[in-house]
Amino acid sequence: MNVLIVFAHFDAGSFNASLLTTAIETLKGQGHEVRVSDLYAMNFDPVTRPTDFSTPENPDHIRYDTEQRHAVKTGTLPADVQAELDKLMWCDALILQFPWYWFGLPAIMKGWVDKVFAMGAAYGQGQWYNRGALKGRRAMLAFSTGCFPSMCGPDGINGDMEIILWPIQNGILRFTGFDVLPPHISHSVNYKSHDQRRQMIDDYATRLRGLFDDEPLPFNDREDFTKDWRLKPGITPRAVGQIRALPGVEGPAS
Amino acid sequence: MNVLIVFAHFDAGSFNASLLTTAIETLKGQGHEVRVSDLYAMNFDPVTRPTDFSTPENPDHIRYDTEQRHAVKTGTLPADVQAELDKLMWCDALILQFPWYWFGLPAIMKGWVDKVFAMGAAYGQGQWYNRGALKGRRAMLAFSTGCFPSMCGPDGINGDMEIILWPIQNGILRFTGFDVLPPHISHSVNYKSHDQRRQMIDDYATRLRGLFDDEPLPFNDREDFTKDWRLKPGITPRAVGQIRALPGVEGPAS
Repeated sequence: MNVLIVFAHFDAGSFNASLLTTAIETLKGQGHEVRVSDLYAMNFDPVTRPTDFSTPENPDHIRYDTEQRHAVKTGTLPADVQAELDKLMWCDALILQFPWYWFGLPAIMKGWVDKVFAMGAAYGQGQWYNRGALKGRRAMLAFSTGCFPSMCGPDGINGDMEIILWPIQNGILRFTGFDVLPPHISHSVNYKSHDQRRQMIDDYATRLRGLFDDEPLPFNDREDFTKDWRLKPGITPRAVGQIRALPGVEGPAS
Repeated sequence: MNVLIVFAHFDAGSFNASLLTTAIETLKGQGHEVRVSDLYAMNFDPVTRPTDFSTPENPDHIRYDTEQRHAVKTGTLPADVQAELDKLMWCDALILQFPWYWFGLPAIMKGWVDKVFAMGAAYGQGQWYNRGALKGRRAMLAFSTGCFPSMCGPDGINGDMEIILWPIQNGILRFTGFDVLPPHISHSVNYKSHDQRRQMIDDYATRLRGLFDDEPLPFNDREDFTKDWRLKPGITPRAVGQIRALPGVEGPAS
């Protein structure tokens, strides 16, 4: 199978860099093809700009998404973005690997999504969620944190990790059709011993061996929602994003 | 009062630019001081780089957060980041205004947070959540979307807006001590008539008049959690991030 790893760490001597090396070796060792987008090494520019469109459809009023669609159709995406989109379309599995910055993607990786998950290619015209243009592919977040697991449990001070990751796992990955695997999280790396970090790297290798076998996270399908995009009566929420629609759950003040 | 608006849209003719103009006029009209960080106009570089630190504490192994703390202490943050941090410390209220990109901040604004919310200045050494270094200030998200409100209700296909915004509202703003106001959302702007957009701009002006009076969102305090950062027995979750800790709520598969 084809695996694309998008990687966002600037230090070749980092724990994240070791995870990346292990991932490449492990996946190749299983016979997969592996490509890596090393965003810092590529000096990837994450900023969406009107000048990304050489021949815009509506030069007087650039809407980024519709110009993406036009550029996809006319083959006029910037060369670096097109190259990334080609990799995205090539892959059977996408791994986003990064150090956790402010409970989400570092800016350089957020901008990779903003630019590469282009309307007209990754989604659009009814292609979203289980009908997304990237359906049939798998995706997984792999990240390191500076916090402890108990902080991100359902009762943790940072909130429930499934809730924290919802906008990425549902809003980016599931939205475009991916089957989303549970994240692989390397917690509180900087508080670990050398041996513990070595173990964490081995754990990642073990995890990656299940990349094409592990059970994806559950989400409701497009068909579970009404024409105005609300859960149909009698349909049970399958994911945390709709948890307040569970019978009897009202939850905290809204 | 002092209001900092951080703004992330590249088009001076956009709906977002109109919202910004209205915000400046409205807030100044109320006697507030207003400063604007127009990230595109400033050509703000959102990428965190090891070269951001001219005299790093540990040049062989750059950890971005601890180098931030060292640079804050030694006054060696990059000039553009220091200028933004000065504005952040100056403000009584922070407004992040942006078009919604992939259920979150555009990369240029995410990187503003990554760089400007520096360890040692915005948080650190026990200063987090209700003890955060920015406590006593207010913050609000103001953003435009391409979706409809029903998509982001508790039973909506995109998931519950409070859950979608959790990593920003709790993880960035509350984490650093802000009192977080409910977001001001301008939904499905591109499907509106000129008159409807005019009304939406007026609605924003009305909303801003309550910037220092409106009730902030509820969150649990640091004191509600145990030493291992879990809700103490008998303490009720006040926000959606800990909703699965509510009695009787187990929720979807975890």
